[in-house]
Amino acid sequence: MSALARRLAVARGDEPADLVVRGGTVLSVFTREWLEADVAIVDGFIAGLGSYEGREEIDAAGRYVVPGLIDSHMHIESTKLLPDELARLILPLGTTAIVADPHEIANVLGTDGVHWLHDASAGLQLEVFFMASSCVPASVFESPRRPLELGDLEALMRRKRVLGLAEMMNFPGVIAGDDTELAKLALEGAEHVDGHAPGVLGKALQAYAASGIRSDHEMLTVEEGRERLRAGVWLLIREASMARNLQALLPLVREYGPNRIAFCTDDRDPEDIADNGHVNGMVRDAVAAGIDPADAILMASFHPALWHGLTDHGAVAPGFVGDVLLLSDLETFLPDLVLKRGRRIDDVPTAEVPEWVRQTVRLKPVTAADFAIPWEGGSARAIGLITDQVVTESLEVDPLVVDGHVISDPERDLVKLAVAERHLGTGRIGMGLVSGSGLQRGALASTVAHDAHNLVVVGADDEDMAAAANRLAEVGGGIVVVDGGRVVAECPLPVAGLLSDQPLDIVVSQSRGCNDAAQQLGWVGATPFLTLAFLALSVIPSLKLTDRGLVEVDRFEIVPLAFGALAETSRPARD
Amino acid sequence: MSALARRLAVARGDEPADLVVRGGTVLSVFTREWLEADVAIVDGFIAGLGSYEGREEIDAAGRYVVPGLIDSHMHIESTKLLPDELARLILPLGTTAIVADPHEIANVLGTDGVHWLHDASAGLQLEVFFMASSCVPASVFESPRRPLELGDLEALMRRKRVLGLAEMMNFPGVIAGDDTELAKLALEGAEHVDGHAPGVLGKALQAYAASGIRSDHEMLTVEEGRERLRAGVWLLIREASMARNLQALLPLVREYGPNRIAFCTDDRDPEDIADNGHVNGMVRDAVAAGIDPADAILMASFHPALWHGLTDHGAVAPGFVGDVLLLSDLETFLPDLVLKRGRRIDDVPTAEVPEWVRQTVRLKPVTAADFAIPWEGGSARAIGLITDQVVTESLEVDPLVVDGHVISDPERDLVKLAVAERHLGTGRIGMGLVSGSGLQRGALASTVAHDAHNLVVVGADDEDMAAAANRLAEVGGGIVVVDGGRVVAECPLPVAGLLSDQPLDIVVSQSRGCNDAAQQLGWVGATPFLTLAFLALSVIPSLKLTDRGLVEVDRFEIVPLAFGALAETSRPARD
Repeated sequence: MSALARRLAVARGDEPADLVVRGGTVLSVFTREWLEADVAIVDGFIAGLGSYEGREEIDAAGRYVVPGLIDSHMHIESTKLLPDELARLILPLGTTAIVADPHEIANVLGTDGVHWLHDASAGLQLEVFFMASSCVPASVFESPRRPLELGDLEALMRRKRVLGLAEMMNFPGVIAGDDTELAKLALEGAEHVDGHAPGVLGKALQAYAASGIRSDHEMLTVEEGRERLRAGVWLLIREASMARNLQALLPLVREYGPNRIAFCTDDRDPEDIADNGHVNGMVRDAVAAGIDPADAILMASFHPALWHGLTDHGAVAPGFVGDVLLLSDLETFLPDLVLKRGRRIDDVPTAEVPEWVRQTVRLKPVTAADFAIPWEGGSARAIGLITDQVVTESLEVDPLVVDGHVISDPERDLVKLAVAERHLGTGRIGMGLVSGSGLQRGALASTVAHDAHNLVVVGADDEDMAAAANRLAEVGGGIVVVDGGRVVAECPLPVAGLLSDQPLDIVVSQSRGCNDAAQQLGWVGATPFLTLAFLALSVIPSLKLTDRGLVEVDRFEIVPLAFGALAETSRPARD
Repeated sequence: MSALARRLAVARGDEPADLVVRGGTVLSVFTREWLEADVAIVDGFIAGLGSYEGREEIDAAGRYVVPGLIDSHMHIESTKLLPDELARLILPLGTTAIVADPHEIANVLGTDGVHWLHDASAGLQLEVFFMASSCVPASVFESPRRPLELGDLEALMRRKRVLGLAEMMNFPGVIAGDDTELAKLALEGAEHVDGHAPGVLGKALQAYAASGIRSDHEMLTVEEGRERLRAGVWLLIREASMARNLQALLPLVREYGPNRIAFCTDDRDPEDIADNGHVNGMVRDAVAAGIDPADAILMASFHPALWHGLTDHGAVAPGFVGDVLLLSDLETFLPDLVLKRGRRIDDVPTAEVPEWVRQTVRLKPVTAADFAIPWEGGSARAIGLITDQVVTESLEVDPLVVDGHVISDPERDLVKLAVAERHLGTGRIGMGLVSGSGLQRGALASTVAHDAHNLVVVGADDEDMAAAANRLAEVGGGIVVVDGGRVVAECPLPVAGLLSDQPLDIVVSQSRGCNDAAQQLGWVGATPFLTLAFLALSVIPSLKLTDRGLVEVDRFEIVPLAFGALAETSRPARD
């Protein structure tokens, strides 16, 4: 008997189910009702709701039965965890499927890295879907190992579990109708495409939507959300570790209902997941804010599935996969039991990481001299940090100059920032200044630096900057804090310089150790390394630094450090 | 500049639109709001909503701007019109796209006929999508020209504009898990499949839904609708000429809102469309019954598109096709103006019908003797008509016997019914009796007889039955009324014996002439030929007649006319 024939026999009541969840209160995502029904599961699929017998039965009396949660947009690499460890972490929290954009590893290891991550997530109970990373590099000012070309994207989209084209971050290019971006949208498989359009409104938004991109997760305000909904753009409401938009956007759910709205975590660091949960935390917080529990669950299960065309996911209903959570209340959203395709969560075997994925940091040993900034006088540009935000200000400052060189000036909260190319060993280093970090001594370095993930280092002292950079080259990447020439805290991330190979508690402890150590050195703000990680992202305003130099994002061009300097802009061709 | 680049330039406001609908009140199907906005259209697509300039402008001040309507499930053949004439009829009523199941012509002409209908609807402004007819024949008791096999379905689903597998009418087979039916569902392209599950409830419904079939248009009651919605089955609410379910099911819209509910016309005859409109008539009637106009329009536009995965149809929004209606009120739903892909309705050129599509009636000349029923005494089965319904009763009657033969007995309202195989010229004729028609004299015949469309003839007189059948063979099919050996009314349907090649007003007049003539002969009920057309459909309860004999639908077997006769049942193997 085929699997489908067996499923039908169970649905008819002619054969016992593998498993029956008996006597619970089941959410119908279609009618938003709570129904009293048994759920019969066979071969991983739900056969029927009603009164059923099974070879095994789970008593769900007094409990709520809801579909497994789905993260509609996230980057695995932000969790710093290997897929198997991520599964160990979030499956018990009720996340049974994720839709991942692997653009971090794509910047570091190209399509090889993407294929590896795809393969590494293949056998897991956590179901990992992908989108093909559309913007590698994020801009022409960034230096990944190599760009992803049209053919790369097409090949990736032919893989199973790849659902479409990931967030089109080059929204100015799309809106302007750049040939390169439109060619991506015309690829076979790119009928389904995620958006990324921070701050875009009015006619620019109409153009972005007219291109066929029908989701966004970058809106911050009700007004941005409202325009997107009206233009037919799905809202993937994001609650990332830095960008937390849930509370600001929930009024839209109250006004319009949950249609065409889904939840996503985008970039969540491991501490955040450990402390606040995953998608289930968004459901909990939405319900605490007064959203109907059924609606909150819809946005975390059925709606992500709808948006991504996962037609047999996201519902407890006949023919859907047996991804089922048992909840004892509708407040905490910490499942009593998680069934993935009808099975309890198994022990997840530890994955092997091949050597080539660990050998990604190619950096010539650096010395303090590599961070020297010769200076002829005059004011300088500086990146103005806004505590714990990814956007920055573009400032004009008078740097401290000694012996014809700019040096860090912690007393005036103005320290050096460098981004060193680390994929091809070119030795290219971009230099800048940062205001508002609070750093008083030592240096912080990281190979997590969106999106190209070159090596970013900030320091009050050039020697410490060199020591921090060299340490990361030594351990194959990660984050590190150096004080007086000595490593005072570190979290090695040897897998592509992005992921740890350690279990969650060690990663969290190392990561917290680094944050604490940074704060010991004077850093203000709760998230020094997340802040650092976005200082090299050349598509978020205002002033950023890559290995190619300072990027004035709004003008979308490279600018010199010296404010008055001859505008030796080197705006690259964009086609 | 590519079409997409041009669309984006218009959206940005950098280029004028081809056409701007200015100053109207536009329905956002996503938020169910009415927005004051211009609609900019270029190259047939909507570029943006806002304030726009165009080379041509239409003043929509004071009017409502809504998406073109989409019929989510219908059979073109039931309108008796060629696709071009159908387009002339329903485009002005606001139907800009239809999803058709061509199973009538598939029964008559196999895949050749389907390909012809597909081609014949290719160049029309009315956008005609198809589903591949899943059940030809409807049952093993029916005799089409030839069955559609798995390979036929697969090939059809590879054609453009074919969206999936049409209504799976063999619902008992699906629920029972018959290999043949499950093989159809496993075909590539059959991920999208329409259902047909009259009266199915409880575990049988769970099984039907578990098979992956997620729509139905056969539900009659709120309770049937409710169970379907909860099981994840879309409701395609049908308002056909005979089966009118709208009013009975609207309470579900009031209770649950319009999500996962769409409108369809299924089988509409030309008189009905001329009198009551098309999908727009359903919107009008729903609004008259108190449904919010926005919700009613959603179910007639965006929701059909959603169900069928027509991702750029059904909304007035950037990137969607420019199918736009202007309405002067929200009551009549008779559009002031219809734009199809941004163009006003053009004159539709008259289509040529190839000769082979007209040569479908292969019937040896019949005489009264062909309708003789030798009788050895005892009671007989009779089909009990229920006025203007497609279901029948199974009756036991004492026939009038003269000279060892049963003859029609109009005085007791018991007349003869015959179904003659008309595709292959086999000469096979099934004989039965009908009670409740009211027919006092003469005969009615039709080559429209679902689903195999053999020749059905009912008569108070054997000579008239023969004359009626022979007349249809002569004109290539149609419907005819004979009285005293003379044709008193007819509507030739020479195209496959199903469609006229005449314009609407002639078809309506001929068709009404036939209905009137039938009523002159004593027929009770408003729809003699629609009633006749369903007497041969062996999948609708209770007693039906095909060229192979009487079918007891609930037992799904052939039964003899003689009630007490030895049960010479010939139930075919069903796997």
